[in-house]
Formats: sequence, C-alpha cells, structure tokens
Amino acid sequence: MSRRGLFVVLEGPEGSGKSTLTAPLADRMRACGVDPVVVREPGGTRAGEIARKALLDPDHPVSPLTELFLYLAARAELVSTVIAPALAAGRVVLSDRFTLSTDAYQMTGRGIPPEVVKPANHAAAGGLEPDLTLILDLPPEVGRARQVAAGKRLDRLDAESMEFHRRVLGHYLAVQGDRVRHLDGCLPPDRLLQAVWAAIVAFDPERFGPARG
Amino acid sequence: MSRRGLFVVLEGPEGSGKSTLTAPLADRMRACGVDPVVVREPGGTRAGEIARKALLDPDHPVSPLTELFLYLAARAELVSTVIAPALAAGRVVLSDRFTLSTDAYQMTGRGIPPEVVKPANHAAAGGLEPDLTLILDLPPEVGRARQVAAGKRLDRLDAESMEFHRRVLGHYLAVQGDRVRHLDGCLPPDRLLQAVWAAIVAFDPERFGPARG
Repeated sequence: MSRRGLFVVLEGPEGSGKSTLTAPLADRMRACGVDPVVVREPGGTRAGEIARKALLDPDHPVSPLTELFLYLAARAELVSTVIAPALAAGRVVLSDRFTLSTDAYQMTGRGIPPEVVKPANHAAAGGLEPDLTLILDLPPEVGRARQVAAGKRLDRLDAESMEFHRRVLGHYLAVQGDRVRHLDGCLPPDRLLQAVWAAIVAFDPERFGPARG
Repeated sequence: MSRRGLFVVLEGPEGSGKSTLTAPLADRMRACGVDPVVVREPGGTRAGEIARKALLDPDHPVSPLTELFLYLAARAELVSTVIAPALAAGRVVLSDRFTLSTDAYQMTGRGIPPEVVKPANHAAAGGLEPDLTLILDLPPEVGRARQVAAGKRLDRLDAESMEFHRRVLGHYLAVQGDRVRHLDGCLPPDRLLQAVWAAIVAFDPERFGPARG
C-alpha cells in the first residue's frame, strides 16, 4: 500500500519544547507502524551543519542578513537532499522548524523586508509547504526562565532582547489556517506531548488513529 | 584631506586572471599613496570563510539554491563588516567578485529565477553598487586550459560543464554601462595588468593619475 507523504512541522519560540517533543512523537508514530524522517533546522546535512555552527556561535555574531541567508542555505540543502525525496517516497517527515521560523525571526523579529524574505524563503523550501504546522505558544519570559533553569548556555538567538522575542511570538500568534494548530507551550511536557499527538492523530486519523489501516 | 570611498570590482569567468591581478593592482594603488582594502568573495570574514569552505568542496557539492544562499551569506557579512565601513571611511575597496557574479553564475548559469536572485542579491549587498566594474572576458575553453596547465585541482565550479560556463560568459558580455569596462582576458598577464590599471586611472584620474593630489 503506497501512501502520500506527510510533512509535519513543530514551530514556536525558544524554550517552547520543540526539540524535546520530537523523539517521543517519533516513538508514537513508530508505534503506529510509521517510521518518520526526523530533521531539525538548521542542520541535517553537511552544509546545514556548517551553517548551524556559524549561526549559533555566541562569540561571533553575524549580521541579520548573513543570518537570513545561512538559514536559507541550510533549508535549501535539507529540502533538496532529505525532505523532498522523503515526501516523494511517501514518508512522514517531522521537522523542528521550517519556513515559518524565518518569517517570525528574520522578517518580523529582525525587520528584514518581506520582499527580500518571502521569495527567497519560498525558493529555499522548493515551494514545499507543511501539511500540518504545530505552533507551541510560549511567552518569552517563560522560555528564558526554562533555559536558565536547565543551565543551558545561551546561544546568540537565546540572548536576544525580550522585545525581539515578543515580536517573534506576536508573529506566531497571528498565524492561522486549516493546516495550523496552536498549542499551549506552558503545559507540562507530558501534557504538551499528549496535546500535540492528539492534534497529529486528528489531522491524519487514517495513518495514526486507532482505526487505522 | 577627506575623500569619498571608491569601490572597484574585478569580475569574469574562472581562469580570467582576477585573483592574480589583485596584488599588483593594490601595489600600484599604494604607489599613488592609496592603501586599498582588498577582499575576495566568498570570504574575508569568519562566516564568509565558513561558507567558502562549504561552497568550494569538490567532494560535497551543494544544491544550486544552497549555493546561492551561501554566496549571499558571505556577501552580506563582508559588506556589513568590511566593505561598507571602509567606503564610509573614504577608503578604496578592491574586490575579487561581487553581485554581478551571482547574476552570472546563479541566475543565468544555474537558471534560478530573477525574482528570487535580484532582491536577495540587492539586500545582501546592502544596496551597494560598485563604482567601477572591470570584467575580464575570456572564453571558457581558454580558462579551463589555463587551470589545467597550472595543475590546479578543479573545484566544483571549475568542473561544471562548458555549456554552463558559456552561459556565464554570455551574461558577462551583455553587461554594459558607464561604470563597466570590458577587458580582453586573453591578454598576457602583464598586458592585462596594464590595461586594467589604465582603466582604473582613467576612471579616477584625481586619485590615481599622474597629476593627482
């Protein structure tokens, strides 16, 4: 039985729990007989990991436009070599961030004009759009407190001003659509996992629901 | 005496002699009492050298869009941290490649649409345009033969098909304007140096001419 691919993206501010969620979500998918391709941005390819290193180095901050283009380079490589082939083969792809992060952080957060960000972002994604985007809404103060409590060394993005992170959250909160679900990032991790998984099952019950197959 | 900056860019296909020319051109400028800032693309900054490494690795070719965005990341960082501050301080900047290379290689050579390349390229350059662009015209067959004769290990761009390099040359040949000079890249190095230097002196005789000062 061949099935079409499914592209699920986790989005949200720093500290909202995206990275923590990917492993247990992938486990639940596997329990449904689906082996997902799990990726994170920036990264997942040789060029993407090189870009990630340049981007997240707190000792050598780059200019806002450099940042934009490094993220887009990482995305273009990830899409062309991993995501697009996986979807074409009918796989489920679970990504920690995608194009919406660029709109939220570089366009709304940094103020780079839409006429620069939009066409470049669309091209880097190879025109791909997520089937389902799960946005974990979280006030920046809570995200910061979580990172400090976890003893995380703040990278360049983490260390940005609260005002910047409020603009980013504002962008996320304004996103609506048939293929978008907002979740409360303030939930405890196990309840957030349940809520995110329920949203995925509800979106594609044939693949993940109890009556699947 | 304060003077406004001057931005001189060397452009042209692989093997046309740009890199070989920068050192003697800088020497001639110094003999005129001008200490130029010499840069090359991609490179010249930490992020730019990281991008350069990813771009020119023949063992790990990247996708055309990844290539575009890595070049733009390198340019954005070089402009914001080196070129724009130098010009603002009245310095002469001599660059081995700039925005025209992106138009020639990524847009015309690779076929990435102008609506993606143009706004991103303009943004990466911070809106800066060269005061003088010196294009060294050279048939790709001659450039290839020179590189082989020099025992150069071909990087990814060098190894592209002749058809690709002909499209690139076609783009260069079509560029015209008050601030553009075409030079015959087939000239022997010493005569090419003379011709390029003469074009620079003619463009800014007050700075570089015999009656300067």
